[in-house]
Amino acid sequence: MALIVQKYGGTSVGTVEKIKAVATKVIDSYKKGDRMVVVLSAMAGKTDGLIKLARQVASEPDPREMDVLLATGEQESVALFSMAVKDMGFEAQSMLGFQIAIHTDHIFGRAKINQVETDRILKALDEKKIVAIAGFQGLDEKGDITTLGRGGSDTTAVAIAAAVKADRCEIFKDDVEGIYTTNPDVCPKAKKMDTISYEEMLEMASLGAKVLEIRAVEFAMKYNVPVYVRSTFSDKRGTMVVAETKDMEKVLVSGVAYSKNESRVTIRKVPDRPGIASGIFQPVFESGIVVDMIVQNTSEDGSTDITFTVPKPDFYRTMKLVSQVAQDIGAEKVLGDEDIAKVSIVGVGMRTHAGVANRMFAALAAENINIMMISTSEIKISVVIEAKYLELAVRTLHKTFGLDDETKGE
Amino acid sequence: MALIVQKYGGTSVGTVEKIKAVATKVIDSYKKGDRMVVVLSAMAGKTDGLIKLARQVASEPDPREMDVLLATGEQESVALFSMAVKDMGFEAQSMLGFQIAIHTDHIFGRAKINQVETDRILKALDEKKIVAIAGFQGLDEKGDITTLGRGGSDTTAVAIAAAVKADRCEIFKDDVEGIYTTNPDVCPKAKKMDTISYEEMLEMASLGAKVLEIRAVEFAMKYNVPVYVRSTFSDKRGTMVVAETKDMEKVLVSGVAYSKNESRVTIRKVPDRPGIASGIFQPVFESGIVVDMIVQNTSEDGSTDITFTVPKPDFYRTMKLVSQVAQDIGAEKVLGDEDIAKVSIVGVGMRTHAGVANRMFAALAAENINIMMISTSEIKISVVIEAKYLELAVRTLHKTFGLDDETKGE
Repeated sequence: MALIVQKYGGTSVGTVEKIKAVATKVIDSYKKGDRMVVVLSAMAGKTDGLIKLARQVASEPDPREMDVLLATGEQESVALFSMAVKDMGFEAQSMLGFQIAIHTDHIFGRAKINQVETDRILKALDEKKIVAIAGFQGLDEKGDITTLGRGGSDTTAVAIAAAVKADRCEIFKDDVEGIYTTNPDVCPKAKKMDTISYEEMLEMASLGAKVLEIRAVEFAMKYNVPVYVRSTFSDKRGTMVVAETKDMEKVLVSGVAYSKNESRVTIRKVPDRPGIASGIFQPVFESGIVVDMIVQNTSEDGSTDITFTVPKPDFYRTMKLVSQVAQDIGAEKVLGDEDIAKVSIVGVGMRTHAGVANRMFAALAAENINIMMISTSEIKISVVIEAKYLELAVRTLHKTFGLDDETKGE
Repeated sequence: MALIVQKYGGTSVGTVEKIKAVATKVIDSYKKGDRMVVVLSAMAGKTDGLIKLARQVASEPDPREMDVLLATGEQESVALFSMAVKDMGFEAQSMLGFQIAIHTDHIFGRAKINQVETDRILKALDEKKIVAIAGFQGLDEKGDITTLGRGGSDTTAVAIAAAVKADRCEIFKDDVEGIYTTNPDVCPKAKKMDTISYEEMLEMASLGAKVLEIRAVEFAMKYNVPVYVRSTFSDKRGTMVVAETKDMEKVLVSGVAYSKNESRVTIRKVPDRPGIASGIFQPVFESGIVVDMIVQNTSEDGSTDITFTVPKPDFYRTMKLVSQVAQDIGAEKVLGDEDIAKVSIVGVGMRTHAGVANRMFAALAAENINIMMISTSEIKISVVIEAKYLELAVRTLHKTFGLDDETKGE
């Protein structure tokens, strides 16, 4: 008898019929003897509708009240789902963030889960009930409702699974059947992976392969919760996200990730003295802009070039901030480029295999793709290239590292 | 500086524009220096929409989950209202049933308020905030969400007003400007009253003049909360519902109430022996049928006639139950009549004035309206008549007791 936490997204519970279908699916597992906890998102379109309503009422909706408003979406889903289950003759009970309680910090709209109480959930499970938990919401120390931000229901599911020590956490996806070696839209030969390690998943997720919310993966890794990503609408095998195993290291590269949401800023001839980098980045960090890659060349003639990337929406703000700093410290000039993209190869196998980077660079060179920046970590190599080469680069690397599904056409 | 609790119904907050208008209205009072607590219903149509959704998911929606679902309506209203107030530059904070907390019993769908905590409300008021409270909802001792039933937001408002010792509770109505001497649709010369006592209001409300939820009036009377019923959409003077004053006794009759939702059952020639009434009504009470008037004639020749009224929807069920009992106890026969109506005159002045009943009977007789049943209380006289005479009876009594507004045409 396993204890399973399942999470269904907004499209999976988007209509009355779909809610009933999910209820049937959950009951099927329950009848096999498993203890079932189900985490639900708001019905598809619900959250956007509420946000629209809020914007009509206030030009800048208050964050606290926005969370009170948005939390109704998941409340609606779990109530309807529990009714459906009970109508089918099985016991169910909905639970909201405050009832469980799911304790979070007080950052409205993107709260972090601090602690999940389990008494109420375990009691309901002991009473043979199917437990339906509202995703995305929690309660701060003041008793205010908080929400976890987009994709927060994934995090709720994994946090609940960790707290109740579930045997596994199943994340049902509306649009994909698992995690792919890269985006099938860009590379038709992309393959579904059977397993992926938490670390690889983190690198994939943060690089734009948005299948699983990154905080959910972090939670899963921290508490060693096996996460099974699968399709709501088919019974096909999905992808298990688990702790790294010996076998995984045999694979050099697990996937190719990319991001188009990057822009690049270069400061030329920065006087090379201690503390200069900190002086440049201080105003950028203080503005809340997230700097991704940073590259500093080896110093020549007492000056150095510093290049870094920021999200595209922050590009102009960053240019303005940095131009001022450049003038103050006597740098030569600031160059900017929005027309770039980042491509990364990810794999725990890199730790134990040499020459991966070189194979990557050679493959791109063979296609005449110029590399503008390089950044490496233990299990990831990222390069910045001209945006127009992005798709070609992804397909080239996918093939180079043996990820192509040869049963599929181009 | 007064402490005022205001309640706005669903139509008053039925659109984004109306929510903003209510916010403006509340801010106007706030700017005059009053401390403001606002209780809101769900936006018009919201609750019905949710019930419809529930019925699509389950043939008999679970009561606990229904309350979880319905509570989202008021949650939405208070969040949007608070955003609107903050957007206009004033401080506001929404509060839900569980946050306050409003403690109720555990009867889902028609819970009774047991206790209202005030710490959080008073703290927010001290912080100069406008407090927006979700009507209609509470929390039972298990931590489950409950709702108070239709019209429950009136009760929430009065209960909150009692708990925080508000100077008054203002109930804003969407459809009327106050409480009338009778229904203006039936009697065009109906007048708006300036004041009415709690007792009179209770008799009016329970007799079908559904302006104020009856539990709200009971609460107001119990805690002596002055309730001011007025229009959302005009500044005209409304009606104050207050404890009885000496002045009120000068008025013989305050209003004429009526109900069309009645049916009559008569048991002929019931053997007149102790315990017989109890034997007749036991099965009716056990079926949850609410018996209103009961009349037993003085016994003749060892048998008596018993007549009583029940709501129309319960008529056939009652007839069936009573026919069985009549047979068992050896009564002659059972007669039923659905084609009846009840008309009542209400007024605290009756206590100190004689002859009111006689004036009522005479006025009806003058119009050839036959009286089938009579029932009296300290401040009310009700008669049952043929349904077709209802409107005529109401207008006749309204005129007889000097209630007609002579500035209005027929």
